[in-house]
Amino acid sequence: MNQDELKKAVGVKSVDFIQSNSVVGLGTGSTVYFMIEELGRRYQAGEIKNIVGVSTSSRSQKQAEGLGIPMKDLNEVDHIDLTIDGADQIDKNFQGIKGGGAAHLLEKMVATNSHKNIWIVDQSKMADQLGSFPLPIEVIPFGCQKTFDDLAKENLKPEFRLDENGDRVLTHNKNYIIDLKNGVIEHPHILADWLDHQVGIVAHGLFLDIVNTVVVGYDDGPKVIDNIR
Amino acid sequence: MNQDELKKAVGVKSVDFIQSNSVVGLGTGSTVYFMIEELGRRYQAGEIKNIVGVSTSSRSQKQAEGLGIPMKDLNEVDHIDLTIDGADQIDKNFQGIKGGGAAHLLEKMVATNSHKNIWIVDQSKMADQLGSFPLPIEVIPFGCQKTFDDLAKENLKPEFRLDENGDRVLTHNKNYIIDLKNGVIEHPHILADWLDHQVGIVAHGLFLDIVNTVVVGYDDGPKVIDNIR
Repeated sequence: MNQDELKKAVGVKSVDFIQSNSVVGLGTGSTVYFMIEELGRRYQAGEIKNIVGVSTSSRSQKQAEGLGIPMKDLNEVDHIDLTIDGADQIDKNFQGIKGGGAAHLLEKMVATNSHKNIWIVDQSKMADQLGSFPLPIEVIPFGCQKTFDDLAKENLKPEFRLDENGDRVLTHNKNYIIDLKNGVIEHPHILADWLDHQVGIVAHGLFLDIVNTVVVGYDDGPKVIDNIR
Repeated sequence: MNQDELKKAVGVKSVDFIQSNSVVGLGTGSTVYFMIEELGRRYQAGEIKNIVGVSTSSRSQKQAEGLGIPMKDLNEVDHIDLTIDGADQIDKNFQGIKGGGAAHLLEKMVATNSHKNIWIVDQSKMADQLGSFPLPIEVIPFGCQKTFDDLAKENLKPEFRLDENGDRVLTHNKNYIIDLKNGVIEHPHILADWLDHQVGIVAHGLFLDIVNTVVVGYDDGPKVIDNIR
């Protein structure tokens, strides 16, 4: 199977976990796209009834609305039962990096307000250790050069993320993205704690102790792996 | 002296600490207003030469520019020698609350990038313990009701700050302000650490271990108190 077929297989498989009468968090990304398509199909067929979706991006919002899935804002629901989202890298301890799509602030808001989280990825996203995927950091523009310098001093190899025109990428909240390209994250919790305390950093892409189940697309089909750590 | 006279006295006094050939952070607020007026006077008189100002708000920026003080953005200077700012409350350990003007994110960026910080306040701002002044929290609008609920669960008595029209106050970064009105903060460092880790919180108004010197306006004149802790 090529990467798109792997993504489609895990996207479709993950919908098995969505129950009728529940509030579902809908992530963002190319694998999640297939999940939302399949959810829409089963919802329209009446196989899954009475759900409400909460999205993490305008893209997922539009896709779900187009499929007739009832959507609410995170502020309008009193909880989320299950969120299904992608991830950019997952290590052997079920810790993850997200933010390749620059949506990790909203994704983290939804994830931390969900009773259960499932990540759906193709096999290329699984790694022994985090860090070969650059870690995305959302920073406020005011004083961002100072934030950048602080990250460089910590030897975290920061780079502002640019769009196809060479301009700095802007997030939903009109902030910049800095990617940390130091290559390996030895101690994710220590780094996350340090990043949490930096004044100019709004959100980082370390999603630690969040995921309950990972659905991984392998060549011989999707594999469901529960986080029992 | 009335409160305005106390504010003016400390604002004027604090300019004594500004040296020629330095980069000066300019805070925001009614006491800082008098400081910037006096700085402009001494700069125009040639008593203080070759300074660059870095402001924490458009209000201070305009005031300083109007007085002819050369201004730069935080991103354009490689350091700040001294920042003079107000504070909403200062306890006996020199810990502070800021954010009454909703500018504490930018103020904290400037403060943490300054070699030295001076706070200028009238005597009403000095307290044994922090908390009788509500603690301002800047939160992203997405999922802010969840952030609010989390703060309420911690018994922190959150209230969204409203403007004169009853609309939620928006910060420079288009976020909301929640004021915590629980009345007393027993352990500022523990609370600050918890707030730093909350996903939807961009900045809180606890300014801990930041100030070097406080200039307090008392009825018998301004008093300079160094933080020797």
